[in-house]
Formats: sequence, structure tokens, C-alpha cells
Amino acid sequence: MLEWLRRYRRAMLAGDVSAGIVVAMMMIPQGMAYALVAGLPPVVGIYASILPPLLYALFGSSMTQSVGPMAIISLMTATALAPLAASGSGLYLVLAAQLALMSGAVLLACGLLRIGFLANFFSRPVMSGFTIGSAILIALAQVKVLLGGELPDFHVPSAVMGLVCLLALLFARNYLGALLRKAGLRATAADIGVRLAPMLVVVAATALSVGLDLQAGGVATTGAVPAGLPGLNLATSSAHWRALVQPALLIGFMTFLISMSAAQTLALKRQEKLNSNYELIGLGAANIGSALTGGFPVTGSISRSAVNFAAGANTPLASIITAALLATALVAPTGWLALLPLPALAATIVVAVLGMLELSTLRTAWRYDRGDAMALLATAVGVLAMGVEAGVIIGVVLSMGTLIWRASRPHIAVLGRIAGTEHFRNIERYPAETRADMLMLRIDANLFFGNVEAVNQRIEDELRNHPETRNLVLVMTAVSSIDTSALFALSELNQSLRQHGIGLHLAEVKGPVMDRLKDSDFPAALNGTIFLSAAMAWEGISSALPIREMHDEPVPSPAD
Amino acid sequence: MLEWLRRYRRAMLAGDVSAGIVVAMMMIPQGMAYALVAGLPPVVGIYASILPPLLYALFGSSMTQSVGPMAIISLMTATALAPLAASGSGLYLVLAAQLALMSGAVLLACGLLRIGFLANFFSRPVMSGFTIGSAILIALAQVKVLLGGELPDFHVPSAVMGLVCLLALLFARNYLGALLRKAGLRATAADIGVRLAPMLVVVAATALSVGLDLQAGGVATTGAVPAGLPGLNLATSSAHWRALVQPALLIGFMTFLISMSAAQTLALKRQEKLNSNYELIGLGAANIGSALTGGFPVTGSISRSAVNFAAGANTPLASIITAALLATALVAPTGWLALLPLPALAATIVVAVLGMLELSTLRTAWRYDRGDAMALLATAVGVLAMGVEAGVIIGVVLSMGTLIWRASRPHIAVLGRIAGTEHFRNIERYPAETRADMLMLRIDANLFFGNVEAVNQRIEDELRNHPETRNLVLVMTAVSSIDTSALFALSELNQSLRQHGIGLHLAEVKGPVMDRLKDSDFPAALNGTIFLSAAMAWEGISSALPIREMHDEPVPSPAD
Repeated sequence: MLEWLRRYRRAMLAGDVSAGIVVAMMMIPQGMAYALVAGLPPVVGIYASILPPLLYALFGSSMTQSVGPMAIISLMTATALAPLAASGSGLYLVLAAQLALMSGAVLLACGLLRIGFLANFFSRPVMSGFTIGSAILIALAQVKVLLGGELPDFHVPSAVMGLVCLLALLFARNYLGALLRKAGLRATAADIGVRLAPMLVVVAATALSVGLDLQAGGVATTGAVPAGLPGLNLATSSAHWRALVQPALLIGFMTFLISMSAAQTLALKRQEKLNSNYELIGLGAANIGSALTGGFPVTGSISRSAVNFAAGANTPLASIITAALLATALVAPTGWLALLPLPALAATIVVAVLGMLELSTLRTAWRYDRGDAMALLATAVGVLAMGVEAGVIIGVVLSMGTLIWRASRPHIAVLGRIAGTEHFRNIERYPAETRADMLMLRIDANLFFGNVEAVNQRIEDELRNHPETRNLVLVMTAVSSIDTSALFALSELNQSLRQHGIGLHLAEVKGPVMDRLKDSDFPAALNGTIFLSAAMAWEGISSALPIREMHDEPVPSPAD
Repeated sequence: MLEWLRRYRRAMLAGDVSAGIVVAMMMIPQGMAYALVAGLPPVVGIYASILPPLLYALFGSSMTQSVGPMAIISLMTATALAPLAASGSGLYLVLAAQLALMSGAVLLACGLLRIGFLANFFSRPVMSGFTIGSAILIALAQVKVLLGGELPDFHVPSAVMGLVCLLALLFARNYLGALLRKAGLRATAADIGVRLAPMLVVVAATALSVGLDLQAGGVATTGAVPAGLPGLNLATSSAHWRALVQPALLIGFMTFLISMSAAQTLALKRQEKLNSNYELIGLGAANIGSALTGGFPVTGSISRSAVNFAAGANTPLASIITAALLATALVAPTGWLALLPLPALAATIVVAVLGMLELSTLRTAWRYDRGDAMALLATAVGVLAMGVEAGVIIGVVLSMGTLIWRASRPHIAVLGRIAGTEHFRNIERYPAETRADMLMLRIDANLFFGNVEAVNQRIEDELRNHPETRNLVLVMTAVSSIDTSALFALSELNQSLRQHGIGLHLAEVKGPVMDRLKDSDFPAALNGTIFLSAAMAWEGISSALPIREMHDEPVPSPAD
């Protein structure tokens, strides 16, 4: 924390200042737009862009992360608050800040408890599906703002402005970069130019709106903005607090996931070490900060952080400069903030979320792993059909389901000896000799509750296929851990085999696994021997019924 | 299905008949008691013990499973129905059958979709914690029935009867077996004698109650029982249907888990093949059957199935005989069923659930794996504090949490060459030579979304510790699968290393893993070489910057 300040060198300043300015210019329209997505007055998006990046700079782990409003988290906020208060009402604002406070507290607690591994509950395809589903939901919700009314009724001046802005932004996204590079800008500078297009479009639309007095013609604008930051107001009803518990947990979880994925991308580019627990603490502080200034839930945004990085940010000083500039925008005369036409803001939202409709994960997964591709599609459809909160749960269930489904199909090979050697190989792939009285199985997975049943079934099948078996040898080269459920399963297998007069032997048990097994009754109860190697088992097991014996001190296997 | 009938031999009949009779005598008091736990009139427990075992016999997978009312499922039924109707009211009975119908439909659907792997979502310690928490909840709820009133007020005759029955049952449980063996019975027969104690105690209590006219003295009894089976009644309110969706899912899940764990224990003893999908279908049919006869959710019970097995059951014919006997009990004059004193039934419940307070899993886990022991305790406390429905969810979350937590700590070894050989070993355990320009890491886990971040972090740490590294070799002996998330992570690692002028190489990639990788762009984009063995990587990588090349056809590694 703040170690970067100690190591600050003057050469870093230019980059941080330019990134701070660029991100501020990106943040103003983006913050206002995402406040709109959250069902809040646009100015709240600026409130939520000042203290959060400052606090993240103090406590967070990524150097170039830009923390503030973000589309998906705004959608989740809107989903959480919709049943509790009318969008934009006083109570709605109070509850938005309260939600940020509660999510922040959850994040902070998780960070202090050091349970950053929670981020691993979502697979990448599921995250991609969640993002695609959310992006479509967000875009659909903006159509009526963009057109100034619900289809088939719409407001012609609003729709014209919205669609012109949309086309301008799409043009900028697809062609402006190439034009700027042709005009002589470097690739990075051209890219930053593209990112500032929303600001320019919004400014132009505002100028037009004011010049032609479109507001009088019925084009909605952002509306009156009080100067300065509001303080923290909390609802006194305990029913409201209770209603926000589950949304706060889900929003906290997604805040962390989205921010981690942004931070990871940047950390890879900068070869910097990320700490998921500090990330939790940084995000927790940022959200509490957002609540204290009347904001709403915030997170690290991949698009904004990438611009921050591209514009030269070296340290969190860039974010501090961004925050300072936004604070200045609020204490300066804020009349102009009231005049931004909503259709233009809606156009920036639609184009921003179109950028989230990224299909390369789906394409790769479709070719590489059809199951992952189906999980991606199911999550996207789940978000669209059941909403973003259910989508988080669907995502976790599908990630875990894929994991358990795969675990329930462990690879198990029947081994035989390559004649004349001490090598044992899968008899399906190699010509290898076997003994009718002995069955050797290599289990190619760690043993845990998710696969014990499948392993058991496979062993029973193999014993049925090899009815003359007197001795079963489990070759444990690939087993790095055995959990309590698997320990029980092994004990029960041992007991059952003993009843049927079949010896159970282990071979090539790794050192750490053997150390752990010694803390149980299993080695003492074993109806056979623990052999150092498969070759020793092959030599050591006579065709007679097994004799119980055990090595005193198994040596770590070669694999360790 | 019914294959057992084709293979039926006359020698099996004696065992099936005796088991059928014994289980029927066990089922009458148990069914009535568990109906009481579910908040239903005791006779409903008998309704739920006739069609379900019959249908399970037709469709289920286990030969000796006894399907019927079960304590935990009854508790879950009571929990689900309590907010919807007054216990024992007409609506309550209708909703209980409806819940069985919905759970049955869920089970049947899961079986037809062949998603029996769902049973793997609960680890064994978590299941043990869930059982312990539920047993305590059930026992606590029976105290007021046993004493004929809430403490400190209780009804003296009821309390005397309840406590005497309790002591008699505890005596039977702890000493009757030894006494019967001393009297010359074989161990199995003695054990069956113990299991019939509840029947004897209830009969004795009923005789006493009738003889002394205790009912007039205020000792509650089971109450009037209509002869014959009721039909199916369903609530017409869609709000009721919707309210039962989540409980039906949770009850379906636990029904399956409990029944599978009973069936597995028996399958191990009988060396019989279990099919989790047929188990789902059998349980689904059983629950729909329960609904059709005005019953409530049922499952396979481990204690009853064990008695069935011990009393000689060879095939599902035993269950068919049990069902026939219970049906006879209902069509015969049922006046006697009305006279059973509730305190005696409560005593049988308390003693039955005391048997579920089995602490050996906790003891084993405490010694073997403290994390699993903590998950067990947390689940038990969760059930006690938040109820049995929340307990199911806590159990899944803790099982998955343990899994992801472990996955987020993969074992990774820095390898060196044992001088003069082609063997590569963990440098922390073996004296092995390394090269300053080359880092060899062996990843001892399948790569998937749960550990990619940890693997990435470890690689970055090692690169920071070995700043002269020009080439990184990942030795993949222990990697049996790479999911889409890990594929992306590897691609990003490759890109990041390329930017820093470090070559990324793979060695000893297993055949099936390589086959899959070829369906992706990764091999073509790789900033280095895929080597057959670690030794070939050691020899093949020059200190110069890596040259991109790739073997056309990697041969399966020796591990396959």
C-alpha cells in the first residue's frame, strides 16, 4: 500500500498526468451513462467516480486499474433497487448508496478474511456468457431512452439525435482509429482518440441541444445538478436492509470478478504481481467511499483501465489526478451538466456494451470444448431469461457443474508390464503382459468426493471383467491428494474386497499423500501391502491369498 | 428393470419373505413417527409406505433398498409446508402430496436427463454435518410431544410414558443385542430383534394406554384413521405451486443423496452395480406414487435398508411383500391405529435420530483433514442456526468451496536434472542441476478455471526469482486435461512472455491433451516448442532466444 509512492520517479509523472486527464474525459460521459443504467440521475455517476478511485489508489493492488461505475454492476444495481423504490426517487438514491456500502463491507470482510480464492468460482466461458447476456439486457433497456419513447411510439427529435450519435460512435469505433493513424498519430494515441469519441459526441449533442433549444422540443436532458458532493444517507427501515443483503452479496461477488479480470489482463502486460486479497480490500474501500459520497456500487472497468494503461499510467497517481479533475468539475459551475441530452448518453451506452458482445471466447470454446461453449450459451440465455441476479447463480452452478461432471469421469487405465522391463503401461495403448490373478489400475486423478463414486464403479466393473482377480493394485502415480470422502471410500473398498477374498494393494504412493494417510487408520486396516513401485507389486504379490504386511517408512516416490 | 424377476430362484424366497415381514414391522411405527416429524397425521406415514416401495422395486437400481418415509426428508417437508398451511390441516395434507409429486417429477426428469452425477455435489463430511444438524433439529422438535407439552409445562402421564419408552428403547439399542446373543441367537437375528424394539414398545404403550384409559387422562394419540388409501388431491392455487418449487428441488436433491448413500453401502456389501440414473428414476416413480396415494416425500433409508439386507432380502420382492403387508394393515379394521400414544412415537423418533448422531466421520476428518472437519461442523451449525433448507445450500457451497480452495493451491515443482541422467526431479527434494537461462516447472494438477490464476501467479513468482530466465518449460506429466479457461490463460501467458523475450515450451504433453490442443490456435501461436520429454527440452533449447518450431505429430507420452 502506497509503496509505489516511495518508489516514485519523476519520469513517471508525464504518463500519469496524461492518463489522468484522458480517463477523466472518458469517465464523465461514462459515469453519467452508467448512472442512467442504474436508474439514477446521471450526476450520481460523477459522485461515484471521485472517492472510489482515490481509495482504491490507497488500498488496491493493481497499479493501473480505473475504479468507478461499470455497466454490469449498474444493471445489477437497477435490478436490486427496482422492487424497492421508484427509479430516481429520493429513497432510490439512498438505497443505491446503501447497496454500495453493503457490497463494500462484504468485499472488505472477504479481503480481511483472505478468501480471494472465491474469484475461482466462475469459469471463463461462463463469465463471457454472463457478460454477453448482461450487455444485451443493458442495450435493450436503453432503446427507449435513445428513441425518446417505447416502440412503436417514439419522439422524433430524440430518436434523430440518438441515432445520429449512435452512428457517429459506431463510425468512431470502427474507422476513427485507422483515420487517425493515417493522419500520422501513433497507434496508442489513435486508440486514445477513439476512446474520447463519446466525450466529443456528448459535447456536440449538448451544444446542438442548447443551440436549437431541443429541450423545449421535448428532448430529455440530465436535469438540474446540485453543486458539490452529497453526504451519506441511510434508510432506517430494517426491511430495506434485509432486502439488500442478497443483492449486496451478488454485487460484491461480481464486482470482485470483473475487477480481477481487468487487473489480471493489465498485470500480465506489466508483469506485476496481483494480490486478490488486496484487490478485495481496495474494492471494499472504494465502494464504501462511493456510499459516503451518495454514489452507487463501483468496480474496476476493463475498458477504462486499458485506456488508463495505454495513455501512459504508471501508478495510481493517474487515478488520483482523474479524481481531482472530476471533483473540480463538480465544484465548478455545474449548470452545463444539466443540459446533456439523454438520447446521446443512451447512444454511448449502447455502443459501449456492443464492445462487450465479444464472441471470440465462444468461438474458441466451440472448437476446443463443446461443453464449455454450452455453459457459455446457457449462462447468456439464463441472464436474458431470468435476469442478472439469477444469472450470477446460474453461472456459479454451471461452472461447478462442469467441474463436477468432468471429475465424475476420471481417467483410469488397466496397466500391464512391458515384457522384460520394469515399465508398466496402459494395456489399451501398449502391448503389455498381464496376470489373470492380479489387476493393476492407474488412477489419473486426485481422489475427492467428486470422483470417488466413479472410481468405485470402475473398479467394480473391472473386477467383474476380471473374475479371477485375487489381488487389486492401485497405482497412485497421478494421485496428489486424497480427501476425507475418498479415504472413507478406500476403507469401504478395502473391507468389501476383504469379504470377497481379494487383496487391495497400493503402489507408487506420493510422499505427501502417504504422510497424510498415516494420520488415518487406513494403512493399518489395509488388506494388502503398500508397495514402492508397480514393479515391486508385480514381483511381490504371490498368487496365494495376500498376506498383510506394510513397509514401515515408505520413501517418496520418484514423482516427488 | 425387473431383470431380477427373470433370474429369480426359489432359494431366494425364504430370505425375501422374512425380510419383507421384518421391514413391515419396522415400517409401521417408523412411518407413523416420520409422518409426525413431517407435521402430518401418523397414518399418512403408512400411506407413503405402500406404493413407493412397489414402484421402486419396478424402476430402481438397488436390490435391497427400502424406500419410504425418512426422518430428514420429513423434516424438510415440515420446513417447506409450515409457512403455507396449518400442520395437519386439509390443505397441509394436499400440499404434502403435491410436494412429493413435484420432487418426484424433478427426480424423474434428472434420471431421464441422465444427470446422476449431481450426487457428487456433496462431500461426505458435509453430508455428515448435515445429518447431525438435522438429527438434533428433529429430536428437539419431538421433546414437546414426548413430554405432552412445552417445557417448563408438561403433562405428567404423557411425560412418564414418553420417558419410559425412551429408556426402554435406549436399553434395547445398547444392551438387547448382547442379551439376545447370550440367549443363543445368531448376531444377525439378534440385530433384527433390536430393530423390532420400536414396534414392541409402541404396541406395549398402546396396550397400556388402552388398558388404563390414558387417552381420557390427556395422553394424545394418533387419532381417527379412515380405512383404505386416499387418492391424489392437488391445490389449485398457482401461488402454492410456485412456493413449492424451491423446496421440491432441495428435497429432490437430498432424497437422491440419502438414497444413493444407502444404496452404495449395500452395493459394496453385495458387489452389485448401482446406476445413479436408474436410482433417480426409481425414486422419482416412488415419490409420484406416494403423491398418488396421499403420501409425502419418501426416500431410501439407510437404517431400514440395512435391516432389509440383514433379514435376508435378496431381491425387491422383499419390498413388495412389505408393501402388501402394509396395505393389508390399512384395509383391515384400522381402529387400533388410532390408539397409538404420541409420546411413545416421539420416543421412537428421538432414539432413531440419536442413531444418526454418528461422530466417527468427524473424528476421522479431524485427524486426517482439518479443513474437511471444519466443513462438517460448519454445515451442522448452519442447519441448526438457519434450518434444513439453508443447510442444503450451505452444504453445497462448503463442498464446492473446499474443492475450489484446494484447487487454488496446485502443487508446482521446479525441476532440475539428476546429473548424468535423463531424469528430472523436484530440486527441493533431490540434488539436481539447473540452468540459469532455463526454468523447468512441473504442474501437478489438471489445468482448469479453479487453478489458472494460482498457476499464473506461481509462474510469475518463479520468473521474478529467476530473472535470467530466457526459456520457460512447463512439464505436463501430471496434466490430464486443460479446460477453455486454462487454454486462454496459457495463450495470454505465451503472449506476455513473448513481449518479454522469454520462450514458452511444453514437454511431456499427454496424448489426449495434445489431441485437444490441436483444436485450438495455441500450438501455432506458441512462442517456443512442444518437446516430447523434459530431457529433449533440456538438450534442445539453446541459450539463444527461442526459435519457433513444432513437432508435427507428438507421440503419446509414456504416462499414457
